[in-house]
Amino acid sequence: MTGPSAAERAARRLAPLFGDRLTANETIRDHHAHSEGWRHPDQTLLPAYVLFARTTQDVSDTLRICHEENVPVIPFGGGTSLEGQLTPVPDCISLDLSMMTDILDVSPENLTCRVQAGVTRQDLNLQLRTQGLFFPVDPGGEATFGGMCATRASGTGAMRYGTMRANVLGLTAVLADGRILQTGGAVRKAATGYDLTGLLIGSEGTLAVITEVQAQLHPIPEAVGAAVCQFPTLASAVETAVLVIQCGLTVGRMELLDDVQMDACIQYSHFTGYEALPTMFFELTGSPASVAEQETVLRDLVESQGGQSFRWATATEERNTLWKARHDAFWACMAYRPGYRGITTDAIVPIAALTELMTGARADIDASGLLAPIVGHVGDGNFHTVILIPPNDADAEKRALELDHKIIRRALSLGGCASGEHGIGLAKQIFMTEEHDPAALSVMRAIKTALDPKNILNPGKLVPADVP
Amino acid sequence: MTGPSAAERAARRLAPLFGDRLTANETIRDHHAHSEGWRHPDQTLLPAYVLFARTTQDVSDTLRICHEENVPVIPFGGGTSLEGQLTPVPDCISLDLSMMTDILDVSPENLTCRVQAGVTRQDLNLQLRTQGLFFPVDPGGEATFGGMCATRASGTGAMRYGTMRANVLGLTAVLADGRILQTGGAVRKAATGYDLTGLLIGSEGTLAVITEVQAQLHPIPEAVGAAVCQFPTLASAVETAVLVIQCGLTVGRMELLDDVQMDACIQYSHFTGYEALPTMFFELTGSPASVAEQETVLRDLVESQGGQSFRWATATEERNTLWKARHDAFWACMAYRPGYRGITTDAIVPIAALTELMTGARADIDASGLLAPIVGHVGDGNFHTVILIPPNDADAEKRALELDHKIIRRALSLGGCASGEHGIGLAKQIFMTEEHDPAALSVMRAIKTALDPKNILNPGKLVPADVP
Repeated sequence: MTGPSAAERAARRLAPLFGDRLTANETIRDHHAHSEGWRHPDQTLLPAYVLFARTTQDVSDTLRICHEENVPVIPFGGGTSLEGQLTPVPDCISLDLSMMTDILDVSPENLTCRVQAGVTRQDLNLQLRTQGLFFPVDPGGEATFGGMCATRASGTGAMRYGTMRANVLGLTAVLADGRILQTGGAVRKAATGYDLTGLLIGSEGTLAVITEVQAQLHPIPEAVGAAVCQFPTLASAVETAVLVIQCGLTVGRMELLDDVQMDACIQYSHFTGYEALPTMFFELTGSPASVAEQETVLRDLVESQGGQSFRWATATEERNTLWKARHDAFWACMAYRPGYRGITTDAIVPIAALTELMTGARADIDASGLLAPIVGHVGDGNFHTVILIPPNDADAEKRALELDHKIIRRALSLGGCASGEHGIGLAKQIFMTEEHDPAALSVMRAIKTALDPKNILNPGKLVPADVP
Repeated sequence: MTGPSAAERAARRLAPLFGDRLTANETIRDHHAHSEGWRHPDQTLLPAYVLFARTTQDVSDTLRICHEENVPVIPFGGGTSLEGQLTPVPDCISLDLSMMTDILDVSPENLTCRVQAGVTRQDLNLQLRTQGLFFPVDPGGEATFGGMCATRASGTGAMRYGTMRANVLGLTAVLADGRILQTGGAVRKAATGYDLTGLLIGSEGTLAVITEVQAQLHPIPEAVGAAVCQFPTLASAVETAVLVIQCGLTVGRMELLDDVQMDACIQYSHFTGYEALPTMFFELTGSPASVAEQETVLRDLVESQGGQSFRWATATEERNTLWKARHDAFWACMAYRPGYRGITTDAIVPIAALTELMTGARADIDASGLLAPIVGHVGDGNFHTVILIPPNDADAEKRALELDHKIIRRALSLGGCASGEHGIGLAKQIFMTEEHDPAALSVMRAIKTALDPKNILNPGKLVPADVP
């Protein structure tokens, strides 16, 4: 007869504190066993329990007890991660922060706010709208601030405003043993110690559980213009993006959809008046005069690269129609081949290598015989392919993974990285040793061991297990 | 009879590798015993040896041997740090990287470059000028890239371009035991592991020795305009700066000099046509049309706050004359009272608290009876006072330190930090426990111990010795 498991022992101690916010309900556990993207090939494991925290103190109590009982804890936010960051390990607790939705403070006079980890950017921006402010980091999906910090998220706004790394000033987080820590603060810069905020951003829940975020806000630009234009070839579209960066044009957003992705978007969004051709979406921001001036420069540049049907919109409604097609790209892919699932690549290279990488990736896709629309945050040298896999087709699954790896290795050989914004999780872990040298990996391991000696925080993710 | 010291043992092993680049010359050792700012009260100690490195391998060899022999190593760049970051400890080696001046690579097509740690921003920008690019982080003095990374430097360009944290993409560094590591890369963003680049930036030589820097470059703006205007009171000048930020005006640089600093500058720079009044320096950048447009908005805002004699310059020479006065501010202070030395404060607060902090600091200065010009990176909520201390005046020295601490504690009570850009070193260490909570300090200590278990890298700096 075996005794209770470690998670069971922890649950007995947690139950009096959390009541029905601690649950072993199978539907809820199943919901916490995976996220939107990659699934572990043998994914049948569920977390032993799901615990819904409401406060930093809840998280502290949970970790203190789980630390004492040696129970692995997997922090869970919006469940939108794509690389297996939320995949359970045996006898673990999924610590769900999605009920931590308080916007604690908005300071228009400091252009900052403080939110609980479960707040989504959509919720925050809705609340900020009347104050003329917004938070610019916009990954796809209803991601939470905690999750966006944990994966170092970015999106279409990164080109102008930077990623989470640039837009988070400070954090409240809970260490593996339950101690609460404040990092950073409310100022725009500081030189007072190791950058613990930056260390936790992108740590994928392996070093601490983020419970509150002090974020930098930005004024909504006075004027915004949007342009869409189509190109005869993928190469000419990418080359246009590269020139925009190299010329230092102050473009706010710049996104590329290839012909396959445009075909999917046209069908999904009833996006009429465009053809299934490589297409660039631009957003220009600033004062009315500067937006108009930028438009002229951009139009010239686009035309010099063979871009056509440059369509320009400054009215909000018209702009929203244009950008909605871009924002719906992932869902358009899913609807393009109903029942298929997608593996998303997220390679990034220095801007001058982007044309070579993207045209190479496109050739790889064509050679694979698979369908894989391309959508790119090309201003950052970053793009995604959503490799579509038919249901129950083991051969296609195998070829899709091979294609995924081939594109990433192309990026690495061009001086790039395996992920621009989705992170490592489990799915991209094999590339950690290809991208980083042994000394860098051993420093990551040393930091993990120093902060979480019992290895209870999202164990096995990010830093590969075989790094000494 | 005592045997050779640890440093002597290390020197015997290093001598065959480095020849006359390893020296015990007293003049050279004395030059490496202090830097521009704060001095330890009992500063008589010299490093046992100075070693001049030329390559990353030199640094690796040095650290490997010093690690084996338990010799403390203090990395030394331009010698311009202000908070005692370079103060020797007994029997240490000063590892001078100022001969590492190679610009290894400039990639105009990627807007990046790679430099050795001893390159100064002045050297780099001179070389870049013909390519229409520049590096925007501009601390005072001839600082090196290694030093600017180590202290997380910023300057007048941070408002628009960010600090070193935002403008360094990757590093080559050497760990305490001599292992060489690469952090980051050449891309604009990445989500592939802990942010080791960000961890080393601001670590003041306590975690690793930075030997190469991959930096982000920026196109020189098409048009630049400069404006100088004077205000009746310090409060009205600061309030103008706060409004510029809160309105989201795209000002490139924004610096404030108080009446005392202006008096010093007028005398030092023969800066005619201005009075000894609180004065703001602005720089606007962009296209010619947008600069002209911004000027109109800025002029209205300045006038609404009582600003006068708004003087506008777009010609390069005229602009340079205006900004030279600002850049010479520290030397103007030194010349204002010849023979005096200065203690520099570097407090920073959220922007909305800046008026309260600066007017409070000015009242503190007046009450102290000391002379202390104020110069501020007000767009970031950061400013410096240079507290001038007459020679051999122990009472003034004591009052200067009290004033320094009073201003910093004002900043902390307003939600700010002890340093915006000069760092902690030894001089600001007492504020680490006031600014950070015990858990944050213990994480810093855990990281230091994990990366440098023998505590040979700049021991005693940054993280206070009494943090467990």
